[in-house]
Amino acid sequence: MAYKDEQLHEEKVFKDPVHRYVHVRDRVIWDLIGTREFQRLRRIKQLGTSFLTFHGAEHSRLNHSLGVYEIVRRILVNFADRPNWNHEERLLCLCAALLHDLGHGPFSHSFEKVFKLDHEEFTKAIILGDTEVNKVLKKVSKDFPQKVADVINKTYEDKLVVSLISSQIDADRMDYLQRDAYFTGVSYGHFDMERILRVMRPYEDQVVVKESGMHAVEDYIMSRYQMYWQVYFHPVTRSAEVILTKILHRAKALYEEGYSFQMEPTHFISLFEEKVSLKDYIQLDEAVVLYYFQMWADEKDPILKDLAYRFVNRRLFKYVEFNPNLQMKEWMELHQLFIDIGLDPDYYLVVDSSSDLPYDFYRPGEEEERLPIHLFMPNKELRELSRQSEIVEAISGKKRTDHKLYYPRDVILQLPDDSQEKKRILALLHHSE
Amino acid sequence: MAYKDEQLHEEKVFKDPVHRYVHVRDRVIWDLIGTREFQRLRRIKQLGTSFLTFHGAEHSRLNHSLGVYEIVRRILVNFADRPNWNHEERLLCLCAALLHDLGHGPFSHSFEKVFKLDHEEFTKAIILGDTEVNKVLKKVSKDFPQKVADVINKTYEDKLVVSLISSQIDADRMDYLQRDAYFTGVSYGHFDMERILRVMRPYEDQVVVKESGMHAVEDYIMSRYQMYWQVYFHPVTRSAEVILTKILHRAKALYEEGYSFQMEPTHFISLFEEKVSLKDYIQLDEAVVLYYFQMWADEKDPILKDLAYRFVNRRLFKYVEFNPNLQMKEWMELHQLFIDIGLDPDYYLVVDSSSDLPYDFYRPGEEEERLPIHLFMPNKELRELSRQSEIVEAISGKKRTDHKLYYPRDVILQLPDDSQEKKRILALLHHSE
Amino acid sequence: MAYKDEQLHEEKVFKDPVHRYVHVRDRVIWDLIGTREFQRLRRIKQLGTSFLTFHGAEHSRLNHSLGVYEIVRRILVNFADRPNWNHEERLLCLCAALLHDLGHGPFSHSFEKVFKLDHEEFTKAIILGDTEVNKVLKKVSKDFPQKVADVINKTYEDKLVVSLISSQIDADRMDYLQRDAYFTGVSYGHFDMERILRVMRPYEDQVVVKESGMHAVEDYIMSRYQMYWQVYFHPVTRSAEVILTKILHRAKALYEEGYSFQMEPTHFISLFEEKVSLKDYIQLDEAVVLYYFQMWADEKDPILKDLAYRFVNRRLFKYVEFNPNLQMKEWMELHQLFIDIGLDPDYYLVVDSSSDLPYDFYRPGEEEERLPIHLFMPNKELRELSRQSEIVEAISGKKRTDHKLYYPRDVILQLPDDSQEKKRILALLHHSE
Amino acid sequence: MAYKDEQLHEEKVFKDPVHRYVHVRDRVIWDLIGTREFQRLRRIKQLGTSFLTFHGAEHSRLNHSLGVYEIVRRILVNFADRPNWNHEERLLCLCAALLHDLGHGPFSHSFEKVFKLDHEEFTKAIILGDTEVNKVLKKVSKDFPQKVADVINKTYEDKLVVSLISSQIDADRMDYLQRDAYFTGVSYGHFDMERILRVMRPYEDQVVVKESGMHAVEDYIMSRYQMYWQVYFHPVTRSAEVILTKILHRAKALYEEGYSFQMEPTHFISLFEEKVSLKDYIQLDEAVVLYYFQMWADEKDPILKDLAYRFVNRRLFKYVEFNPNLQMKEWMELHQLFIDIGLDPDYYLVVDSSSDLPYDFYRPGEEEERLPIHLFMPNKELRELSRQSEIVEAISGKKRTDHKLYYPRDVILQLPDDSQEKKRILALLHHSE
Repeated sequence: MAYKDEQLHEEKVFKDPVHRYVHVRDRVIWDLIGTREFQRLRRIKQLGTSFLTFHGAEHSRLNHSLGVYEIVRRILVNFADRPNWNHEERLLCLCAALLHDLGHGPFSHSFEKVFKLDHEEFTKAIILGDTEVNKVLKKVSKDFPQKVADVINKTYEDKLVVSLISSQIDADRMDYLQRDAYFTGVSYGHFDMERILRVMRPYEDQVVVKESGMHAVEDYIMSRYQMYWQVYFHPVTRSAEVILTKILHRAKALYEEGYSFQMEPTHFISLFEEKVSLKDYIQLDEAVVLYYFQMWADEKDPILKDLAYRFVNRRLFKYVEFNPNLQMKEWMELHQLFIDIGLDPDYYLVVDSSSDLPYDFYRPGEEEERLPIHLFMPNKELRELSRQSEIVEAISGKKRTDHKLYYPRDVILQLPDDSQEKKRILALLHHSE
Repeated sequence: MAYKDEQLHEEKVFKDPVHRYVHVRDRVIWDLIGTREFQRLRRIKQLGTSFLTFHGAEHSRLNHSLGVYEIVRRILVNFADRPNWNHEERLLCLCAALLHDLGHGPFSHSFEKVFKLDHEEFTKAIILGDTEVNKVLKKVSKDFPQKVADVINKTYEDKLVVSLISSQIDADRMDYLQRDAYFTGVSYGHFDMERILRVMRPYEDQVVVKESGMHAVEDYIMSRYQMYWQVYFHPVTRSAEVILTKILHRAKALYEEGYSFQMEPTHFISLFEEKVSLKDYIQLDEAVVLYYFQMWADEKDPILKDLAYRFVNRRLFKYVEFNPNLQMKEWMELHQLFIDIGLDPDYYLVVDSSSDLPYDFYRPGEEEERLPIHLFMPNKELRELSRQSEIVEAISGKKRTDHKLYYPRDVILQLPDDSQEKKRILALLHHSE
Repeated sequence: MAYKDEQLHEEKVFKDPVHRYVHVRDRVIWDLIGTREFQRLRRIKQLGTSFLTFHGAEHSRLNHSLGVYEIVRRILVNFADRPNWNHEERLLCLCAALLHDLGHGPFSHSFEKVFKLDHEEFTKAIILGDTEVNKVLKKVSKDFPQKVADVINKTYEDKLVVSLISSQIDADRMDYLQRDAYFTGVSYGHFDMERILRVMRPYEDQVVVKESGMHAVEDYIMSRYQMYWQVYFHPVTRSAEVILTKILHRAKALYEEGYSFQMEPTHFISLFEEKVSLKDYIQLDEAVVLYYFQMWADEKDPILKDLAYRFVNRRLFKYVEFNPNLQMKEWMELHQLFIDIGLDPDYYLVVDSSSDLPYDFYRPGEEEERLPIHLFMPNKELRELSRQSEIVEAISGKKRTDHKLYYPRDVILQLPDDSQEKKRILALLHHSE
Repeated sequence: MAYKDEQLHEEKVFKDPVHRYVHVRDRVIWDLIGTREFQRLRRIKQLGTSFLTFHGAEHSRLNHSLGVYEIVRRILVNFADRPNWNHEERLLCLCAALLHDLGHGPFSHSFEKVFKLDHEEFTKAIILGDTEVNKVLKKVSKDFPQKVADVINKTYEDKLVVSLISSQIDADRMDYLQRDAYFTGVSYGHFDMERILRVMRPYEDQVVVKESGMHAVEDYIMSRYQMYWQVYFHPVTRSAEVILTKILHRAKALYEEGYSFQMEPTHFISLFEEKVSLKDYIQLDEAVVLYYFQMWADEKDPILKDLAYRFVNRRLFKYVEFNPNLQMKEWMELHQLFIDIGLDPDYYLVVDSSSDLPYDFYRPGEEEERLPIHLFMPNKELRELSRQSEIVEAISGKKRTDHKLYYPRDVILQLPDDSQEKKRILALLHHSE
């Protein structure tokens, strides 16, 4: 029997808190799960620094990847008897679902920004490079790794396959909304996925949703909206993110200026030099990063030491709303005051905007990569969701950004009460608010 | 106002998936949560190696500690208007609940066994030593740290206080059963805690349960039984545990014989030498351990290298039921065969018994430390649970041990099909089963 | 001890699927629950005819009334330590919560429309009349029944008390949304009530919500939106409602024209004559109504017989979207065709509009009786919810009505295939759609 | 296409709180659901008088019947690719599952006892008689109604089919445990049905369970145990049952002695005369019974009037534990005292034993009708569950009966405090306890 058709002697199941069980019958899927590149995802948290806000948010990207696979598996069971569905591509969909996040590194958002990395490139590199994952995929067929990479990259010719993995209502999002809600414990993030799966239909080059399921889709969009504002953009999470980013900046700057680290930062050197090899990249996970941060909390450089200590022991920055109408001279004054009290404003006075964050909300058309949601109407025509649903229309038009100013309030408050700087800093910060 | 009576300006809440919210009003509790020793518990998983079996079981001991605190807080709200309850000790109970697991190290069970550590000693040391936790507690009163340590150590004079934290139906167990069930996703582990909390009564030196709540308690005991066999003693978890233990043994043996590690195992040296300082111990968390294991997967020593690689990449040992009636000469033969094919049986042929595991089941009397559960009968007398409940009686008498033989099946199966050793090993293993 | 202060020897609990437990300590509440007028609510379904659409929706108004009481009880626990809360009125709030639906009759919506009844009047009459409920309330104080009636009637002077029971985010709505979602099994209707209860504050003459809880309130508003369209306005439920209304119309018309019923419709006579006494009204419950409908399914009058049979055995009318632009002459033609095939269009061709239904959606200002939701902003000012929340603003402006045309499709389809009437009726109906 | 193979144009779903959705594709099933005999089950509560204890327990037998159908449907999907499964019998299983409770009357347990009825006989009669159900079934094939009746009657030749509907772990029980838990709101009654369905296997003439699923089955057995003692045998429910039974006894006795009812008890006459026709039986539902009870609460006969009033308005009897060692002369004295104070002991002093109740617990062998649970062991042998599971063994051996003495405490307590009878009655009752 061809490797691609091999079935496990007995179906394997993983107990999953969100989907109850993840079912595996295909030998290929089983083998992929066992690769070291996939297992590495256990050491990367799905929600980055959110665990510092929501103590339950300690789940890994492996956890999520199995979930996305399971959703796609269920969709394909539903599609099995549809004439316009290409059965040949079943395994391709499953592999792409399982592997779509393979290239994520530790705390991706900050690392990518600081070191100019792109996890999608690494996903591709892992799939196509000299890896265990590649070996498994090649056993299916010589061009199979490329196909999987194309699907994840959204360049695969059959856009229907792509849309299962990347669209406004794909398996990726349906999994993470539910999973992140489950592990954080928030009451948002619930929608009737079973219903949505039942009203999904392959239609030409996309997956569409029967109009009778519109309310379930509305509920999904609302969940998304609430999750973004309640979880993903949570200001405490962003505080941890700010500190993390500043640690990386500082370590890089020190390296560049020839600072002598107490412990050679072996794992970081190729990052600092912006020429990361695949091998180096795979070595990097959150255990390694946390190990370094603990070491750095004992470094001599006071900024690196302080920031690393803050991250490891959760001494986060506080924030005020940032007033974009603040006068430039007040902003300059604030800078100078920070310098006066011994805080480098480059590291200790940080404006962060939620719109920088890597989560997009539903905006049909605006974002080229994600396909909008189409309803399949009783008259057999398609209709873009926000044209049919008042609620979705209402929220999809709005852009909401949110600027916050992060700073170490603990340091300011420890200044003597009669300190002129203290009074003025607090006044300016409140003015900002 | 005395520090012990200080209330937060506004109650703080943590979103908790199990108890919905964890509520904090006391300044002391808030300050303890912020200490670095408490924050360190984020980097220690509640269920050790179970995440390799249940991918959801990635939750930390901090997560659990907040839960225990919350349960005790709710019990005390219920006790507030009971005359036989000593209100002075409220804060003591809360602190002991929050801090009871403070001394846990990474993968406690294996580390304690190999390096002869005792997490309870470290809990005490952290509470009484030169730590941030100690500083906070001392602000309450000079002898307060000692009191907290005594409660956790079960030597505190008021046994009623002790029994909230350590008895057969204490806040610790009620939290971990529910929490571990939630994060693994198993359907066991549910019981009606709200009901149990409502029927709990302080009674002389213990907490007892009104007889009308017996069925809820039975349900709790059954949950426990199922959790032990379905989750805590899961054979795959034990396989990971076996490998972990053998890595530690190997590294220690290499150190003792003067092996030169590629990277100096700084964090482990005091462990290897069995003279761990508090400072060293606190440094040690699972990020650090995983970092070392990744390094060791590149060591020269083939056994350390192989075992570390197996742990990091989840290439676990398989198992057969171990037949305790196996003849000694067969066992010797199996040993020799392993040596013949190049596997050191000390590391690759391991018998593991579930009764070794650090979980006890309900056995009134047998275990000195944990108080049995007493029902408060309508006639105002006490009655030990298993004398009243047939189900509990039925299961509490039984001792169930389970011996398994762990070995690297992958290696055996890769031997050539005509290998005599392969055939004989498989025959002996199956004979064992 | 005064009756109003009497506490039960031991707190009583009711197991409740939605709030887990309903707790009763006050003797007054316990006694009210035991009255026959309150127990009668067991025989009135909370959701009228919805059980014919959602088979789980079989829960009674007693079920809901206990839930509303429990929510108010919890709010009052939260209010207990607020200076601006009048503790004297605690019992008043609890009684009003428990009794607010006391005057509901069977299938209230239809009965009220056909027989020109008003359940609020009956609630008042039961509270003030010669009833067991009145006897209990009078034991509190002579004017207590009147106070309770005033709260329910929204005329009580302390509007803060009123707003707990009747506002856009009152205990009534919070209970029914969750309860109806639970019993129907739909995935909408969930919101974080625990959070909302924690951010509620008494403020002058209303209950307001701290701005930090806005997202939880948004979620509640969205739940409401979804519940209205998915459950309360469900077209199948409305079909049953249409038939029920027509049964009542027919029976009344027959009575008025002196028709001789096979069984004297004793319970209905005062309804038919529009002079219902309190005693008659209390006798009337859904068991009685269903008994009559079963009898009427054997009446001689073919319309009453058919409609009653349809209701009892769930042979509902089908529907098409009603085209409000249908030409009057086509509508007249349809009428005539129905007459031609022997169906009286007054009973068999019914336009129903969802906007007739007794559920209002969030429209601040538009509706005099229900207070809008005010947020308590960090700057201590109040702000009406839809001015702060984009989502709420987006949906609260919209009015959405929905007209459907109900008719007995089974009868039409049984006409011979070559029937001209059949073809033309179906054509006109589809034209309507 | 043959009627039996007809599929609905589009799958229909019912929203179900327990199984999320009930799916119907077969025209036969759809038509059966629409029959008046099936719709009648809406007017019969699944749990009889339990709604007077658990206000959520208002769900109907129709509700449960759809659930049993859905479970069998899912089992059959799992069986679809098993060689030892006879596909021809799929529709037979589904119909038997849907219709297995068709013959239940109102408050079955009491009615059957008093009037010597047998709901299983009526199920058969409805399936085979001149009914809408029979018409639908006959369209499948002439002998199909008989086959369905045989399966429900457990006399069908293929015992494998029978065991899906009636065994110790059949669809009936799996549904009612979960459903009754859901609607009452108790925390028992949960088990991992999804897991059990996956480990079920057809094996010769029964359905067996793979040994690897034993713990899930243990959990199911424990749920059952808890549900019986916490819900089904609840003493308050039994109190309502006692009163109901006594009402029926009284009405029958009055009829037999020629008492002249104010309203002719038309629906009851054939019951009183113990010659119930199918037509009469089908007329009888709980709406009709409640209607009569309301009428009887205004009868002249003081006993019928009082008991009916008690049932309708929930003035239940209280209970004490009945001491089976009570001396006969004390029992006689108690009887006489009741007579002395004007209470007929036949109606007002009632011993009720839980073992009378129609629920059996797991007792392999003891009960002829229900097949025991067999595990399919890794060695391919079968093993009866209680031989493998210590927990099940522990509880299945035990017989637990519980005798309670029910009486109207309200009447006793209203006697003057100096009444000799009052003192003596209370003393004897307490002696009994």
